[in-house]
Amino acid sequence: MTEAKRVAILGSTGSIGTQTLEVIRQHSDDFTVEVLTAQNNCDLLISQALEFIPNAVVIGNPSNYEKVKEALIPHDIKVFAGQKALEQIVEMETIDVVLTALVGYSGLLPTISAIKAGKQIALANKETLVVAGDLVTSLAKEYGVNIYPVDSEHSAIFQCLVGEFHNPIEKIILTASGGPFRGKDRAFLETVTKAQALKHPNWDMGAKITIDSASLMNKGLEVIEAKWLFGLKTSQIDVIVHPQSIVHSLVQFEDGSIKAQLGLPDMRIPIQFALSYPHRLKSDFERFDFINYPNLTFEQPDKKTFRNLQLAFDALEKGGNAACILNASNEVVVDAFLKDQIGFLQMSELIAETMDRVDFVSKPNISDYISTDEQARIVTQELIKRNK
Amino acid sequence: MTEAKRVAILGSTGSIGTQTLEVIRQHSDDFTVEVLTAQNNCDLLISQALEFIPNAVVIGNPSNYEKVKEALIPHDIKVFAGQKALEQIVEMETIDVVLTALVGYSGLLPTISAIKAGKQIALANKETLVVAGDLVTSLAKEYGVNIYPVDSEHSAIFQCLVGEFHNPIEKIILTASGGPFRGKDRAFLETVTKAQALKHPNWDMGAKITIDSASLMNKGLEVIEAKWLFGLKTSQIDVIVHPQSIVHSLVQFEDGSIKAQLGLPDMRIPIQFALSYPHRLKSDFERFDFINYPNLTFEQPDKKTFRNLQLAFDALEKGGNAACILNASNEVVVDAFLKDQIGFLQMSELIAETMDRVDFVSKPNISDYISTDEQARIVTQELIKRNK
Repeated sequence: MTEAKRVAILGSTGSIGTQTLEVIRQHSDDFTVEVLTAQNNCDLLISQALEFIPNAVVIGNPSNYEKVKEALIPHDIKVFAGQKALEQIVEMETIDVVLTALVGYSGLLPTISAIKAGKQIALANKETLVVAGDLVTSLAKEYGVNIYPVDSEHSAIFQCLVGEFHNPIEKIILTASGGPFRGKDRAFLETVTKAQALKHPNWDMGAKITIDSASLMNKGLEVIEAKWLFGLKTSQIDVIVHPQSIVHSLVQFEDGSIKAQLGLPDMRIPIQFALSYPHRLKSDFERFDFINYPNLTFEQPDKKTFRNLQLAFDALEKGGNAACILNASNEVVVDAFLKDQIGFLQMSELIAETMDRVDFVSKPNISDYISTDEQARIVTQELIKRNK
Repeated sequence: MTEAKRVAILGSTGSIGTQTLEVIRQHSDDFTVEVLTAQNNCDLLISQALEFIPNAVVIGNPSNYEKVKEALIPHDIKVFAGQKALEQIVEMETIDVVLTALVGYSGLLPTISAIKAGKQIALANKETLVVAGDLVTSLAKEYGVNIYPVDSEHSAIFQCLVGEFHNPIEKIILTASGGPFRGKDRAFLETVTKAQALKHPNWDMGAKITIDSASLMNKGLEVIEAKWLFGLKTSQIDVIVHPQSIVHSLVQFEDGSIKAQLGLPDMRIPIQFALSYPHRLKSDFERFDFINYPNLTFEQPDKKTFRNLQLAFDALEKGGNAACILNASNEVVVDAFLKDQIGFLQMSELIAETMDRVDFVSKPNISDYISTDEQARIVTQELIKRNK
């Protein structure tokens, strides 16, 4: 690459954000940090800013503003606070690419704002496409913006499609680790605790996505994300459980040929590729070796026990604001599960009931999405209260 | 594709040749048959010509010339005979791509002739690159000709490289079925018969390549072919045994990401892609399904028992005419094994001894290759006679 790409990282203190900074640290000729943002973790945000000296930072929670400002103003780093600042900062002229690693629904408006400012998007926040995939991908097309996936499964598919964008996809196969409860039945799931659900067999992530992985909702959200990223019909998306998490996903073309991307689970590869595409940068990440993985196994997902995956397919098939309802309700039930207010299996039940109760909108605009999200959260919260 | 590609098939009556015609039959808007050639099987050649009405055919064995001529001249199809005709026919102006599916060393001169005439090459005859990879790839560069691999492993790598030709390869991993004697020891191999060696677990091919598969020489030749096709060092080529033959090969890039191409073993996919690249044509070939392959396994090749694979790596490392000696000697020993003149393990011994005895040429030209090939055959034949 000739000139360093200037990167804004939304959510720089989370798992994806810190790994993005690792990638940039190792490729300082290729990337510079223009903006860093965090919701609450102001200590880490400050230390990141002192290392990378971005043009500006945003702290989401205004109560931390003074502390961050005091630490960074002497270093000539601009400091802003609050949700609105997040939506505005991405419009900065000196940003080339916005990596959005915000958690859940909160990623939507800043991403839309970045697209409208013509910034390339490296998307780690799958909920943006889950909630409003139709709107976001239409906007990206209108503003000539590419959305590069950071999720390892979608990056795998994107990597397989490189050089083949003119060849129609027959189907994609998303791989799923199966999570910590793979092979368990509903009787077992009835009793599982938060601590059990938070132990992912293959990697460390934030709490929300770890629960989503245990409940297979994460795979459901990825199915919806894949639909929008790659312009697919529901029937073109398969999910296969692959406990070793080595094959990150596969694409089948119309000639019957299948391409897969694989490797050790390491988010730095998809992060780096989303930033460096179409180039690949030399890395010292640990290499995959078949000696350590002589058996790769594949099995059908159990959509009856892990009902969330089926609910996601249903929402996708229904279209309109259905996936937005699914996502909002899921955010609320995961939060409630993490607070020990509901059991593991109740999560799916409450989501299903919320999907039945919230008004369906077949062609939602942005304010429909916002009000759907609000309404769905209220409905789920009421259902949780009644349940107690 | 806009205009139909005009295809010459060298070796149309063999396994690859007939499958190529199947592909063309199903995509008659995309391809037309311009030339068909066969060595001996004149009945099949005649019936193929009557179906596809090529501009010309060549029968290698001159004693069949009259029969073929009589059958095809009334249909306005030109008929030629002999090796020289094969080398000349590929220069025909109306040919766009030459698919070379000749057996062994015989593919070399017609392929060189086609390259010099500026024809694109779809290469199923790996020996061409094994014998004279340096020369053939230099010529292809000089004449602006692309060599599209037809071998399933090399096609897999090529498919993974599409859109990535600017990104350096870190290494490639060629998969091998392991053949019918996978896991066997030398004591067992001492006793195996021709009939046992001809039973390949995963597919049907010609006798020569089936024996090469059983002895792992086929994989050795593929290692050498891969070096030349993709411009690799010996150390960048790994072989892994994968008995299910679903993953056809893999490429590892410098960022650590690995891409693989997979599917049911079906040569029509790589044949079709070599002809249709960069497009993929819709096919009704049976699709791969993980339901039928829940376990994919991988193991290290046993280069001590299957010494041929090591010999191929040695020849590649040595360079010059070493691989030409290896290939010529192998053609002679396989023939002798098929005639029950020598045992299975003797094949490697005779090849190794031939490699020691034939003069090494570090920078061979085409006449060096021709005389190396002759000399190696004579040496191996003498060794076989002495052994009796």
